[in-house]
Amino acid sequence: MITRLSSLFLRTLREDPADAEVPSHKLLVRAGYIRRAAPGVYSWLPLGLRTLRKIEDVVREEMNAIGGQELLFPALLPREPYETTQRWTEYGDDLFRLQDRRGNDMLLGPTHEEMFTSTVKDMYSSYKDFPVTLYQIQTKYRDEARPRAGILRGREFVMKDSYSFDMSDQGLEDSYAAHRAAYQRIFDRLGLSYAICRATSGAMGGSASEEFLAISPNGEDTFVRATEGDYAANVEAVVTQPGIEKAVEGLPEAVEYDTPDAETIATLVDWANSEGLDVTAADTLKCVVVKVTAPGEEPELLGVLVPGDREVDMKRLEASLEPAEVAMAEDADFKKNPFLVRGYVGPRGLQANGVRVLADPRVVKGTSWITGADAPNRHVVGLVVGRDFDIDGHVEAAEIREGDPAPEGQGTLTLQRGIEIGHIFQLGRKYTEAFDVQILDENGKRAIPTMGSYGIGVSRLMAVLAEQRHDDKGLNWPVEVAPFQVHVVVANKDAAAIEAGDRMVAELDAAGVEVLFDDRPKVSPGVKFKDAELLGMPFALILGRAFADGKVELRIRGGETLEIAADEAVAKVVELVRG
Amino acid sequence: MITRLSSLFLRTLREDPADAEVPSHKLLVRAGYIRRAAPGVYSWLPLGLRTLRKIEDVVREEMNAIGGQELLFPALLPREPYETTQRWTEYGDDLFRLQDRRGNDMLLGPTHEEMFTSTVKDMYSSYKDFPVTLYQIQTKYRDEARPRAGILRGREFVMKDSYSFDMSDQGLEDSYAAHRAAYQRIFDRLGLSYAICRATSGAMGGSASEEFLAISPNGEDTFVRATEGDYAANVEAVVTQPGIEKAVEGLPEAVEYDTPDAETIATLVDWANSEGLDVTAADTLKCVVVKVTAPGEEPELLGVLVPGDREVDMKRLEASLEPAEVAMAEDADFKKNPFLVRGYVGPRGLQANGVRVLADPRVVKGTSWITGADAPNRHVVGLVVGRDFDIDGHVEAAEIREGDPAPEGQGTLTLQRGIEIGHIFQLGRKYTEAFDVQILDENGKRAIPTMGSYGIGVSRLMAVLAEQRHDDKGLNWPVEVAPFQVHVVVANKDAAAIEAGDRMVAELDAAGVEVLFDDRPKVSPGVKFKDAELLGMPFALILGRAFADGKVELRIRGGETLEIAADEAVAKVVELVRG
Repeated sequence: MITRLSSLFLRTLREDPADAEVPSHKLLVRAGYIRRAAPGVYSWLPLGLRTLRKIEDVVREEMNAIGGQELLFPALLPREPYETTQRWTEYGDDLFRLQDRRGNDMLLGPTHEEMFTSTVKDMYSSYKDFPVTLYQIQTKYRDEARPRAGILRGREFVMKDSYSFDMSDQGLEDSYAAHRAAYQRIFDRLGLSYAICRATSGAMGGSASEEFLAISPNGEDTFVRATEGDYAANVEAVVTQPGIEKAVEGLPEAVEYDTPDAETIATLVDWANSEGLDVTAADTLKCVVVKVTAPGEEPELLGVLVPGDREVDMKRLEASLEPAEVAMAEDADFKKNPFLVRGYVGPRGLQANGVRVLADPRVVKGTSWITGADAPNRHVVGLVVGRDFDIDGHVEAAEIREGDPAPEGQGTLTLQRGIEIGHIFQLGRKYTEAFDVQILDENGKRAIPTMGSYGIGVSRLMAVLAEQRHDDKGLNWPVEVAPFQVHVVVANKDAAAIEAGDRMVAELDAAGVEVLFDDRPKVSPGVKFKDAELLGMPFALILGRAFADGKVELRIRGGETLEIAADEAVAKVVELVRG
Repeated sequence: MITRLSSLFLRTLREDPADAEVPSHKLLVRAGYIRRAAPGVYSWLPLGLRTLRKIEDVVREEMNAIGGQELLFPALLPREPYETTQRWTEYGDDLFRLQDRRGNDMLLGPTHEEMFTSTVKDMYSSYKDFPVTLYQIQTKYRDEARPRAGILRGREFVMKDSYSFDMSDQGLEDSYAAHRAAYQRIFDRLGLSYAICRATSGAMGGSASEEFLAISPNGEDTFVRATEGDYAANVEAVVTQPGIEKAVEGLPEAVEYDTPDAETIATLVDWANSEGLDVTAADTLKCVVVKVTAPGEEPELLGVLVPGDREVDMKRLEASLEPAEVAMAEDADFKKNPFLVRGYVGPRGLQANGVRVLADPRVVKGTSWITGADAPNRHVVGLVVGRDFDIDGHVEAAEIREGDPAPEGQGTLTLQRGIEIGHIFQLGRKYTEAFDVQILDENGKRAIPTMGSYGIGVSRLMAVLAEQRHDDKGLNWPVEVAPFQVHVVVANKDAAAIEAGDRMVAELDAAGVEVLFDDRPKVSPGVKFKDAELLGMPFALILGRAFADGKVELRIRGGETLEIAADEAVAKVVELVRG
C-alpha cells in the first residue's frame, strides 16, 4: 500500500499545543495523529487511526489465542443493571449520565461488568458451557475530574475489557494465568518496557490482582521494584517485612519524662539525645490519629503507629482499610476528645479511652519505643509492646522508601513511576452474586460461577508508546504498529532520482510493505527530513545527493543511518520490515 | 480458522422475541447475532460482530478505492460547533444531550458535518490541498421516537459517513459520481437488491441527491420505479408530466350550477353525469386549502389544486414547500375566513381574497375544469385556466399512482417499498459557509469549498441482508460477509465419520476457509441441521448416513443439496467459497 504525503490528510505543526505537558501529547498532536475535540476527547486523524487499529489487532490476536471470544456491548446503557450493583450511585461524578426523550435514565458505559454478567446469565445455564472468556474492544466513557495528557487520560477512550467465567476457583486461576501470559505477549510485541505489579484489590473486592505498569517518568502511579529478582508492586500493595519478636523479659522499664516543646519527632529526638539516650527517629513511635468511616457507619477514631522516621502514607492506609474512608483527625476532633493531647498522643491513652490502635508491622512484641505519654510536654521512653501496651492489630500505613528491603531476599526496593496499561484481577463472585447467576454443576446443583476481570487501555497504549519511544525530533513507532513501515523521501531533483523513487515505492508496495511516500514536489529536503522524524516511521529511505553515485540512505529511526547501494535498497527495507 | 459450536458463545432460540415484528429482527435475535440491551440499543454477540466487521471491511475497501481517507471522530461532542450551525436546537428530541461534571453541554453525535468541516478548516488553507474525501465508520446516536425492528432503526448504530471537499462545482460532481459508483460496488458485493432513487434534497438544502433503497416489503419508504429503464425516485421526488397547453379560444363558456349536497368529488361527479355531462373525477378540480408556515413567519393560507381523482399527498406537498411547514386548514380557519365555503371552494374565490393558488402540473392553460364556485351548493363547469382564472404557479402535491406514466418514455410507474441503505448528496456550501472555511484559490483569492455528503447505514445493512435473504428456517448470508463460510456437521456416530469430519475441518482451515464446526457430542442431527439453517452460513457440509458409502452432503443454503464423494468434499467447498 502506498500513501502519498501530497494527498494525505495531515498538517504537521512546528509548535507544541498550548495545553500539552507531556511528550506524547505534544508529539501526537504536532505529528497530526490526534486532534482535540473537547477536554479529554480526541479525534483520530488518519495516521493515528492506523496505529490505533494496529494496536487493537495485536490485542485481538492474543486474546483470540487464549480462546477469548469477541463481542461488542453498547456504550449507551440503561440504568437498571447498574442499579443492581449500586454502581449507578457509587460511580459518582465519573459517570456520564443522561436521559432519553422519554425521561429514562441512561449512562455511557465506563466499564461493562454488568453487561457481561447479565448476558452470561441469560445465555448459559449448565456447567458444560464453562469456562468461557469474553472480551470487547470498545469505546468507553469516564467523566474524569482532570482529563490530562491527551489520550493518556481521556474521557472517551478505547479499552479492551475481558471477563472469564469459571465454575471453580482453580479454573479462575487458570484463566487468570492465561490472561497474564497473553498480556505479556501483547506488551512484548509492542516493545514496551513495563513491570507487573502486585496490586491491592481496590474498591472492586476480590483477591489476586496485578497491574501492568509501563515505566515512564510521566506516570501517575508510583510503584516499587526489587533491585534483584522480578518483584514489583504498587506502593499500596507493598507488604512490610515484620519486625522480629523478642522476649520482653529484662528490657529496661518504661520511664516518663518532661519533654517541653518536643511536639515533633525531630524535637523529640533532639531532646532524647540531649539526655544521652543516643537514638534516631526510628526509635520513636509516631502515633497518628485518624477518622475511619466504614460504609453506612459513623466515623470512628483510630490510632496508627508507625516508626518515627516514617510518615503515614494515606493512600496505603486507605488501601489497607478499604472500603472504609479515612481522614486525618481535625482540630474539632481534638477539642471533642480532650484525652488527645496534640504532640503527645500515645497508644496507652488511646486504648484507655476506647480508641483502637493499629501498628506498622515493625512494631511487634518486645520492641521498645519512645512515644507520647498522653499529657502536655510528657513522653515515655522504653515503652515495650507486649509488656506496657498491646496493639489491636497491624496495618500497612507507613511510607515506602527507596532502599527498604525487598521481599524474599530480592535486594532492596527502588521507587519508580509508571502508567497503568493493563490490570488483571481475580474478581470472584461479586457480580455473579449480584445478578444471581445460577448454573447447574456436574451434580445437578446450583452453583455461582467465579469471574476474572482483565483490562487494557488500548488508546492509552498509543500514548505510552509515544512516551517511551521518542526523542526531541519526534515519534518512533515499532514496526508492528507504525502507521507505515517505511517513509520514502526523494531529496534529489534529478529525473533519474525521481524515477527511481517511484520505482522503489512500487516495488516496496508489491513486496507488501506499507509505504508513506513524501512526493510533495515543492517542499525542501530539510522540511521533508524533519517531517519524517516527527512522524516516526521506523525506517526512512532517502534518495539524496549520493544517488548520483548509486547510493541511498536508509535511516533507522532513533538509530543509525546506513548508506547502501540503490539497487539493494528495496531488498534491505523488506528484510528490516520483516524483522 | 475453526470455531467450534461446543465452545462458541451462542444460544439459539426456538421462539421469536416478543417485541419483534420483522424477519430480520426475529432471526438475528433467535440465531444469537444480536441481543437487546435497551430499546433501540443492541449488543453484538460473536456471530453478529463478525458479520458487522466484514460489512465494514467491504465499505472500507471501496471507500479507500476512491481515495477516501479514514479518520474517526468522537461520539461525545461539545455543544459549540452544533450551535454554529443551529443544529443543537434544530435536532429537537432526536439528539441525545448531556452535561459533564462541570455543567458543560455535550451531545452524542447523530451526524458529524460540524466536525468534518471544522477539522478541514483548521488543517487546510490552500487549493493545493483539495479535493479531499474523508470518511469514518463510527457509532452514532439518535434518540428515535420509535426505535423499531432491532438494528433496522436503532438508537445506537454504526454508520459510514463521508464528505468530499472540492474547490469547484465540477469537482463536487466528480466526487459525487465516484461515491455513486463506490456505493454500487458495495451493494453489489453484498448481493443486495436495491434501487437508486432520485431524492428531494430534504431539509439539508443543496442540489443533486440520490437514495439507495434496498427493496423490501418491510421498508418504511415508498418509492417508484419505471417498468422500463432504470428510473427510480422517492415519491417526494417524482416529477409529474405536465399537461398540454391549449388555446382557450372556442372553449365553452363557464357556467355556474346549483349543486346541492355535492360537497365531495364523488357526489359532484354523480351530479354532473345526472346533468348529462359525461365526466369522471379527473375532470373535476379539487381545491384543498392548507396553512403554510415559512421559518420565522406567520402561517398563511394556500390553495392547492389537483385533479379530482387524486388526493393531495401531504408528504409530497411538504417536500415541495420545504423548509416551510404545511398543515391542513382547520375548522377555525374556515370560520375565520367566511369566503372559504367548505365543499365549494374554488380558485377564483381564493384569489379574490388574496390567497395564493398553486396547481398540479396537469393544470395548464386551456384545460377546463368543474370546480367549486365559492358559494354554498354552487359549482362551476367549464372553468378554463388562462381564461377564467390564472394559477400562481405549479406544485408537486398530487399522489403518485401505480400506472402513472414514467418520465422519458420508460413505461409506467410501479410503487415499491424499500429501506434506505445509502444516501449521496451534493450538499454545497452550507457548512463551509457556516464555519467560514476560506481557502486560497489558484489566483490567491479566498474561496469557499463545496461539499458532498455521503452515508451508509452499516449496522442497518446487516438487518437488510437478513430481510432480503432468509426463509422460514433461518438466515442466509452471502459468502462475502457470512460469519463463517462453511458449517460442518458430523451427523454420523461412527468413529470413521467423526475422524473424517475432524480431518476435513482441518483441511478446510488449512485452505483458508472459515469453518464453523458443530462438534457438540450430545446434540441430535436434527437439532444440528436446524441450527445450521437458522445460523445461515452459505454452505453446510454434512457427514451423515451416506458417509458409509463414501458420500457426504453439501447443502447450499437456500439452494440445492449435492451428494458428493467424501474425498472431493474439501476441494468442492473451497471452490464454492472462492466463487
